[in-house]
Amino acid sequence: MRELLEAVAAGDLSPTEAEVQLRGYATTDAGRFDAAREQRRGVPEAILAEGKTPTEVADLAETALETTGRAVVTRVDADDVAAVSDHLDDADATVDHDHRAKTITVHGVDFDPPTLDATVGIVTGGTSDAPVAGEAAVIAREMGATVEFVEDVGVAHLGRVLDHLETLRDADVLVIAAGREGALPTVVAGLVDTPVIGLPVPTGYGAGGEGHAALDGMLQSCTIISVVNIGAGFVAGAQAGLVARAVDDARPS
Amino acid sequence: MRELLEAVAAGDLSPTEAEVQLRGYATTDAGRFDAAREQRRGVPEAILAEGKTPTEVADLAETALETTGRAVVTRVDADDVAAVSDHLDDADATVDHDHRAKTITVHGVDFDPPTLDATVGIVTGGTSDAPVAGEAAVIAREMGATVEFVEDVGVAHLGRVLDHLETLRDADVLVIAAGREGALPTVVAGLVDTPVIGLPVPTGYGAGGEGHAALDGMLQSCTIISVVNIGAGFVAGAQAGLVARAVDDARPS
Amino acid sequence: MRELLEAVAAGDLSPTEAEVQLRGYATTDAGRFDAAREQRRGVPEAILAEGKTPTEVADLAETALETTGRAVVTRVDADDVAAVSDHLDDADATVDHDHRAKTITVHGVDFDPPTLDATVGIVTGGTSDAPVAGEAAVIAREMGATVEFVEDVGVAHLGRVLDHLETLRDADVLVIAAGREGALPTVVAGLVDTPVIGLPVPTGYGAGGEGHAALDGMLQSCTIISVVNIGAGFVAGAQAGLVARAVDDARPS
Amino acid sequence: MRELLEAVAAGDLSPTEAEVQLRGYATTDAGRFDAAREQRRGVPEAILAEGKTPTEVADLAETALETTGRAVVTRVDADDVAAVSDHLDDADATVDHDHRAKTITVHGVDFDPPTLDATVGIVTGGTSDAPVAGEAAVIAREMGATVEFVEDVGVAHLGRVLDHLETLRDADVLVIAAGREGALPTVVAGLVDTPVIGLPVPTGYGAGGEGHAALDGMLQSCTIISVVNIGAGFVAGAQAGLVARAVDDARPS
Amino acid sequence: MRELLEAVAAGDLSPTEAEVQLRGYATTDAGRFDAAREQRRGVPEAILAEGKTPTEVADLAETALETTGRAVVTRVDADDVAAVSDHLDDADATVDHDHRAKTITVHGVDFDPPTLDATVGIVTGGTSDAPVAGEAAVIAREMGATVEFVEDVGVAHLGRVLDHLETLRDADVLVIAAGREGALPTVVAGLVDTPVIGLPVPTGYGAGGEGHAALDGMLQSCTIISVVNIGAGFVAGAQAGLVARAVDDARPS
Amino acid sequence: MRELLEAVAAGDLSPTEAEVQLRGYATTDAGRFDAAREQRRGVPEAILAEGKTPTEVADLAETALETTGRAVVTRVDADDVAAVSDHLDDADATVDHDHRAKTITVHGVDFDPPTLDATVGIVTGGTSDAPVAGEAAVIAREMGATVEFVEDVGVAHLGRVLDHLETLRDADVLVIAAGREGALPTVVAGLVDTPVIGLPVPTGYGAGGEGHAALDGMLQSCTIISVVNIGAGFVAGAQAGLVARAVDDARPS
Amino acid sequence: MRELLEAVAAGDLSPTEAEVQLRGYATTDAGRFDAAREQRRGVPEAILAEGKTPTEVADLAETALETTGRAVVTRVDADDVAAVSDHLDDADATVDHDHRAKTITVHGVDFDPPTLDATVGIVTGGTSDAPVAGEAAVIAREMGATVEFVEDVGVAHLGRVLDHLETLRDADVLVIAAGREGALPTVVAGLVDTPVIGLPVPTGYGAGGEGHAALDGMLQSCTIISVVNIGAGFVAGAQAGLVARAVDDARPS
Amino acid sequence: MRELLEAVAAGDLSPTEAEVQLRGYATTDAGRFDAAREQRRGVPEAILAEGKTPTEVADLAETALETTGRAVVTRVDADDVAAVSDHLDDADATVDHDHRAKTITVHGVDFDPPTLDATVGIVTGGTSDAPVAGEAAVIAREMGATVEFVEDVGVAHLGRVLDHLETLRDADVLVIAAGREGALPTVVAGLVDTPVIGLPVPTGYGAGGEGHAALDGMLQSCTIISVVNIGAGFVAGAQAGLVARAVDDARPS
Repeated sequence: MRELLEAVAAGDLSPTEAEVQLRGYATTDAGRFDAAREQRRGVPEAILAEGKTPTEVADLAETALETTGRAVVTRVDADDVAAVSDHLDDADATVDHDHRAKTITVHGVDFDPPTLDATVGIVTGGTSDAPVAGEAAVIAREMGATVEFVEDVGVAHLGRVLDHLETLRDADVLVIAAGREGALPTVVAGLVDTPVIGLPVPTGYGAGGEGHAALDGMLQSCTIISVVNIGAGFVAGAQAGLVARAVDDARPS
Repeated sequence: MRELLEAVAAGDLSPTEAEVQLRGYATTDAGRFDAAREQRRGVPEAILAEGKTPTEVADLAETALETTGRAVVTRVDADDVAAVSDHLDDADATVDHDHRAKTITVHGVDFDPPTLDATVGIVTGGTSDAPVAGEAAVIAREMGATVEFVEDVGVAHLGRVLDHLETLRDADVLVIAAGREGALPTVVAGLVDTPVIGLPVPTGYGAGGEGHAALDGMLQSCTIISVVNIGAGFVAGAQAGLVARAVDDARPS
Repeated sequence: MRELLEAVAAGDLSPTEAEVQLRGYATTDAGRFDAAREQRRGVPEAILAEGKTPTEVADLAETALETTGRAVVTRVDADDVAAVSDHLDDADATVDHDHRAKTITVHGVDFDPPTLDATVGIVTGGTSDAPVAGEAAVIAREMGATVEFVEDVGVAHLGRVLDHLETLRDADVLVIAAGREGALPTVVAGLVDTPVIGLPVPTGYGAGGEGHAALDGMLQSCTIISVVNIGAGFVAGAQAGLVARAVDDARPS
Repeated sequence: MRELLEAVAAGDLSPTEAEVQLRGYATTDAGRFDAAREQRRGVPEAILAEGKTPTEVADLAETALETTGRAVVTRVDADDVAAVSDHLDDADATVDHDHRAKTITVHGVDFDPPTLDATVGIVTGGTSDAPVAGEAAVIAREMGATVEFVEDVGVAHLGRVLDHLETLRDADVLVIAAGREGALPTVVAGLVDTPVIGLPVPTGYGAGGEGHAALDGMLQSCTIISVVNIGAGFVAGAQAGLVARAVDDARPS
Repeated sequence: MRELLEAVAAGDLSPTEAEVQLRGYATTDAGRFDAAREQRRGVPEAILAEGKTPTEVADLAETALETTGRAVVTRVDADDVAAVSDHLDDADATVDHDHRAKTITVHGVDFDPPTLDATVGIVTGGTSDAPVAGEAAVIAREMGATVEFVEDVGVAHLGRVLDHLETLRDADVLVIAAGREGALPTVVAGLVDTPVIGLPVPTGYGAGGEGHAALDGMLQSCTIISVVNIGAGFVAGAQAGLVARAVDDARPS
Repeated sequence: MRELLEAVAAGDLSPTEAEVQLRGYATTDAGRFDAAREQRRGVPEAILAEGKTPTEVADLAETALETTGRAVVTRVDADDVAAVSDHLDDADATVDHDHRAKTITVHGVDFDPPTLDATVGIVTGGTSDAPVAGEAAVIAREMGATVEFVEDVGVAHLGRVLDHLETLRDADVLVIAAGREGALPTVVAGLVDTPVIGLPVPTGYGAGGEGHAALDGMLQSCTIISVVNIGAGFVAGAQAGLVARAVDDARPS
Repeated sequence: MRELLEAVAAGDLSPTEAEVQLRGYATTDAGRFDAAREQRRGVPEAILAEGKTPTEVADLAETALETTGRAVVTRVDADDVAAVSDHLDDADATVDHDHRAKTITVHGVDFDPPTLDATVGIVTGGTSDAPVAGEAAVIAREMGATVEFVEDVGVAHLGRVLDHLETLRDADVLVIAAGREGALPTVVAGLVDTPVIGLPVPTGYGAGGEGHAALDGMLQSCTIISVVNIGAGFVAGAQAGLVARAVDDARPS
Repeated sequence: MRELLEAVAAGDLSPTEAEVQLRGYATTDAGRFDAAREQRRGVPEAILAEGKTPTEVADLAETALETTGRAVVTRVDADDVAAVSDHLDDADATVDHDHRAKTITVHGVDFDPPTLDATVGIVTGGTSDAPVAGEAAVIAREMGATVEFVEDVGVAHLGRVLDHLETLRDADVLVIAAGREGALPTVVAGLVDTPVIGLPVPTGYGAGGEGHAALDGMLQSCTIISVVNIGAGFVAGAQAGLVARAVDDARPS
């Protein structure tokens, strides 16, 4: 501890970094950034932009960048993108914005991203699944996995599913996003021997709408899948990333 | 009315038949038998055995036989079968018991069953769908339709679905029974241009169990299907029968 | 495939049309348009305007027009109507806007609409049922059926139901829209021998509101009906269209 | 109080009657009997037989008889009937058993039943509504109302409803029992200007089953009705009885 | 019919009035006004302002005034009040606006309001119950009943309930509005022998919020009450009005 | 640890007691008994008899007696009582059975029960609340509190509530059990300044039945109360016991 | 009463204060302020700013200040703060605004705040719990308790929980706020012998979202806790205050 | 196909084995056994004993043994164990019964079980989690994984969780079973970087009972976990087995 405080005094460590090392999170005007999650499970802590002002988002992204070398922001709108870009996109960092996934990733120039020798397949049934599936893809990539995207293979278009069978079978783990009746993970899981994580998408109205029929259908699946909550792209991507890392750990380097 | 009473007096008409013609239903110790439904929509009135004693079931079946020339009993157990057979299986009537559908049908010797020049396809995903789907088949057959059964083509076994595509496409209307996640009607409806009626089966436990995920998934289907309530094999079969009769009416004889 | 690409090279086929023939759907800036549904089941793919900008709606309508000869847009507002009219209403196409149904239909000058020798009856209980029922009517008409509208015959006005009995009995299939307690399909189905499709309308507040009592009541109906989800006018109309086509197929031409 | 105890000492008042006058209820080995409800609202306290042994039922009925001059027991089975009859049916009281309503009423020889110059109409849609509706009838009669029964006029049989219109209109208040989709109270309330109390019956399976669709449909009714809980025949009958008494109070004697 | 048309031709009857007499409702640009409900049950048809423009509200009010001699509008805002007043408040009609009940009533100069020799008591537990209870009061008054208001007697303030006991007991029927836990109707019904109609108010958040705990609590009440749906002030007031009219009918004039 | 094992070897400590000290729980053929809870929060670990055979119950009670000096068994039936009495009621222990609470308590002769200088008031609305409330009482007493019972003061009998006001106000904490509409805790909490814990009882059928209306109503209460789950008499009694102990700790001894 | 009116006449008592003494609440243009709650249970009546205009909030706060010497306003926004400060922050009163708790408290210069010799611990799992927990803290403080805050000790960070164990054990009663899966109260209650009140926070989306999983999880807790409704910070804080006062009463002064 | 039939004719292949090879499943009197699942995903097809007679169970087990070399039966009772043992336990096969998991496994003498170089950790919070967790363990073992059991580490006993941290961290994938509030997977996932599969157990009564609070809490977890349905031990164990096989595939042999 003494050492840490001397490093701060000497200017070798920012107060924010010191706070993270002592308490596991940093306090900013915009709230708290929990840098410890990354240490704990290797899953980057994401900043949820929904419900925050663009300035707050940019401040938290800066804190994340300072303390962990990168920032991952989810559910951003155009104002968030502008604020983060204005604030952070310079010689010291690169800012990437994934339009469909509604995410921003910032990497410091010195950030050394992890790489895993493992592939996460991410499958969608239609356009409306794109944001949630995209969020899963960003997290899996940030954890170091290779991500293969298979899009628009809805359950009412069996031919398209069969066309991509080889890609689906080659992945180490699959995240399959589906809204409405949510049958796609079940159909795919009947065709591969890869672990499948079902990701319900909040679409549909009336009875079973907003993703509830999809979630319940995946929980009732007559094949073997595990699931995450409705719209939980971050959780699905991170769980796939944890499986990918277990596979990578097992692979001889 | 006078005429009717004179026919009763003369013994040409049983009091039960007279009651049916006057009030639309017959009263027995076992309850009421509603003979009018058959006149109204051509759908035979079924006797639900559940919650009745075998004797009550046999009495109601006898009334049905007397007033409409036949009887259809659903959800029977072995005791019901014995009671109805003992009571009615003789020179004047033939009693059929469908073990898997848990139904009994009785036809009087003079009964002239309707025939429709139309086919109802009935599809199941597994053994547990058999009773509900069988109930649908019995009703459709009693209405005169030809019934084609396609069994055990669950959504986790796509190959089996594809094997029966021609049969599925040749039917005039399809009833597709499915429990658990209930995806089969959606998958099949994406492959045919026949009207599809989804029939949710009360299987599965936990969230969405007892057929609720299946019902909600069919209501949310991204294809075109209409549905009936969970376990409502009678309704699905009769609705298919009504479509079959509309088709038969249109066919040149 | 070679042939197709040569047609594109020769300018005989637009890239969009080629994409549709190869992949079944066209990609535009506004998202994907799934032209294949029309081929698969003869049901025109509808563009849902809700949640899209007027420009996106107009772009997708143009793609639909180009690849299938027509466009059907549902749940439009005034801005959508203006955008589509500005964009497409010219010598090559006619744009129709159904105010009550909140739909737009566009037919290319060369489009040869299908015609079915079959009638779909569409019944409403009150003013608030009009948009959902109207959507059903538009789809059934686009599939070629003759549509007969019977309006404002709510269950609390039995006389009005009885006044239209002949029309109701003459239809080949009925779509009956009802909100609140949703009893109208049950009452009508007790009076006709036509197949009835119940269409719950999202009206009512408090317990069972937003169409839930109507949906559950139709699923519990003591008569023979099948149902679609709350507000699913498109599905009800298309299912009626599929029955109408089955009837038309059976009719001698 | 002194007076009361002296009456007990003198044998003019049983200890049970004295307890009721002091505390409002009597304590027996079988539980408590709340005699005060009768005083408070003129509604006889009913003994619910379900969940009690026949002996407990008979004991409570005896206490009720002793303290209020009569006993009303609901949801009885054959053993309850035997126990109460053995125990109480003698020179001092008469025991009536309503088989369909599953109720027992016991009147002491000195009991002077109330009479109201008002009529409660009770309407059912089918056989399965009989027990719940019968319970309502027994309570209304015990409160002194004349009860008119109109049976088997389900919503799928409009003709039968219309046949009884005059009876329905002549009642001072109507209790209308209905299960499944529960549309009967709505249909009748559209035809009369009598106050209507909807009584949902716990029938139907699947979505909206066990009377839930009926309750929600009645709450959503587009006409004017008030409702009671599913299966609450006692409450519906007593509420009708309170309206009947208000009418009787207003009638010149 | 001939007569009617001749009266229109002669200018003795407006086309709108003629339409109402022929069809039971009048069609305007703003939708339909159902004048027949008033004939059927003596309950004035209310115009629900929510979801309509002020101009539509004023148009429908004018139609109501023309065909039934009065107009009742519920859930109005300031713009609706201005539009109706501008449009109708002149020598031929008087417009009343109840601020708390959010209602407007318009009476033509020749309108002869009904009067009933009966009292409806309306009880609220707090300020948030006022709009829903006020709606009930307006309808009951328009049906001719005398309305007694007892306000702010919540269940957590027993003393206030007891203070008004005489007023509560003197009414012929009570409407008791309550949100949150909805216990007030139960508490009051334990103290009076008047029929009580429970009116759940959509207050409260979290589990059982928006009036659902109040509704369920009233359905479960251990006393005798009937209920209407959450926020259904119109239904409660009209049902109380129907009871009041039954009482008035019984009273010697 | 060495010490412990030597004590076992020397016969000074039973193997069961040693296991408890080492692992916090004891393993028997009938399952595990978790003796550590008592150490942790001073709340005796209760043995739930439901779902266990009488022999298993008796075995677990013996283990509890051996390791903590007493046993508390809940939801017992007559067979459980016989088994425990046969097994444990001898010179070394006394077995008490509370018939209404369905509990057994066993105290070893050397057991020195805790005593708290604090009072827990337990209030019920009717006979059906007795088992759940009784369970609460037994736990509070075993924790050392004085328990005051106030029974049959249901919300429909306000007079009885007011009669016991002094007792209610004198308690240090109140547990108020109520089923059906569950209004009693709200009514009482409006009259006292003692902390009130609401205990919903699983009574009532239909909507909001099995205690759900009671739970939701208590959560929505317009007064200050905290609640436990439906039927959780053990939790309510223990929470009251924890408050009583906090009060006792504060009282000068 | 005479005395009271004379005091008003003499100007010694404001009409508002007199109304409060006579009726228990004061009527202003902005609604009613219920001053009696404070007398009844010592819990300050809070003014809920949500759904009121800033002017109404300021008026009610003034009434509260005048009649009870202070005002507590919850769920304020910046406009409410400005309005109350402008209106009341002067020589006669001090206005405090808690930004995170979204509360305002106003104390008159002569107000003598209660003090309790007891400590309420308030625990949160993360930033999103702050407003609800803060509301609890403000109420507990206004009732006179000392409040200890323990923040950001979520269940996924066990170390942080253990770090604060001593503070948690030293409190007389704990309020533990948690959203999402709501496990924190269970984890903490397993480590302390203090009474724990669970406060579910309305966070999370999808199944169990908006605090419902947290509420149900707390009701199902395998430890001893009582709970309040989702987001009910006021109730949790006041219940903790009532326990604190019971402890304070017991403490020798 | 010819070849197959000749092998049957020659007696080299049983008709059952031939049916499996041709149709993917075998038909017996007891129903269908789906041998193809094992081929498809390497997950042994389990026979669910619930709802079957012991004879049916034994027949299906024999078919499984004949066609796949082994049988796995879940949710068995003592009669099932006796029937299978009598039928199959001989020189050609060994029958194992796991009492707590309620499973039977039968291995033919020639069966060569798969082995995976990977470990599945299975964690329970208490005795009531044992059957569901045991089912998961049996499946994972049958797929070849090493299974490590960590029992009775409930969330109210944090010390026990911490004691087993090393075992938890050493597993390649964890299945964590929990009922009631279901917090254990969240607590453990905050301490390890292994993929965690949450397995909700159907315990608890009242709100959120029967495992629903556990499922919703796991779906809402603030850490990274995926889940299966309530009581779905088979699915959780098989999903863990699929992850274990992915890890095994990656490990150098």
